[in-house]
Amino acid sequence: MINLNFHKNRIKFWFNFTKNDQSMLEVGNSYEIEFSFTQEQVNDFCKISGDFNPLHWDEAYAASTPFKKPIIHGALIASVFSKVMGMEFPGEGSVYLKQVSEFKRPLFVENTYKARFEIISTNPAKHTAEISTQVFELERGKIMVDGMASAMHADLF
Amino acid sequence: MINLNFHKNRIKFWFNFTKNDQSMLEVGNSYEIEFSFTQEQVNDFCKISGDFNPLHWDEAYAASTPFKKPIIHGALIASVFSKVMGMEFPGEGSVYLKQVSEFKRPLFVENTYKARFEIISTNPAKHTAEISTQVFELERGKIMVDGMASAMHADLF
Repeated sequence: MINLNFHKNRIKFWFNFTKNDQSMLEVGNSYEIEFSFTQEQVNDFCKISGDFNPLHWDEAYAASTPFKKPIIHGALIASVFSKVMGMEFPGEGSVYLKQVSEFKRPLFVENTYKARFEIISTNPAKHTAEISTQVFELERGKIMVDGMASAMHADLF
Repeated sequence: MINLNFHKNRIKFWFNFTKNDQSMLEVGNSYEIEFSFTQEQVNDFCKISGDFNPLHWDEAYAASTPFKKPIIHGALIASVFSKVMGMEFPGEGSVYLKQVSEFKRPLFVENTYKARFEIISTNPAKHTAEISTQVFELERGKIMVDGMASAMHADLF
């Protein structure tokens, strides 16, 4: 069964967004979360997805590539976007319509990264919003993944 | 450890693409694969991603939504794109640069779907290509996910 404590080591940040059932989300509202993946989680993702590209799990193979170390699957990184939008910002009731993810730099296991979300535009008639979805490394704030999502939410947009 | 037999029930189709170390991939080359996900795989993905949106695992909750049944995470569907590009088409040596995924209709567990990839354009100077990434339901060929990927491959593009 599902272990709801699985991600208790993830630290959440509330930025200028306060969850409030009465208020709609507006352009400029944002949300941040830190995340990391272990090699074990990446290996589990290999099994679930069928993506056994050795770049993700074989240290010796990865060492022979320009990446030097195993890198996290792009689709696993993108799962952070899906998780936040489905559970946190905007949260329950979101319908995920579109995701654009540009993988600008490789993400490595065990490193901690920051994902940032910001409402870029809303369409109240359609209850949809465009939300920027970005991943940064912590030390110098370099952008690792740039992107944009579209979501629908009957009450919040 | 990783079980390489995990996806032995997946059926692969080779379309007008023949793997050949000598030949570059060209516009119009395409690749198709059928896939499905079980509820257990979706539950495992909840754990790895931290995305416990009940829409994906709680049948009673899903029954109360317009979807009626648990739906597969978009990021898990997108893992099929990553898997094919990293392992099969173009395959080993691919660097995944970008993914656009438009979730047009929900995908349900246990159903079999077809993913289709086609080289839309190539840039031999940069060794990159744009590849359409689409998911169809089998019965009537309805499009479920529409999308486009960019990848780099030193030998094949």
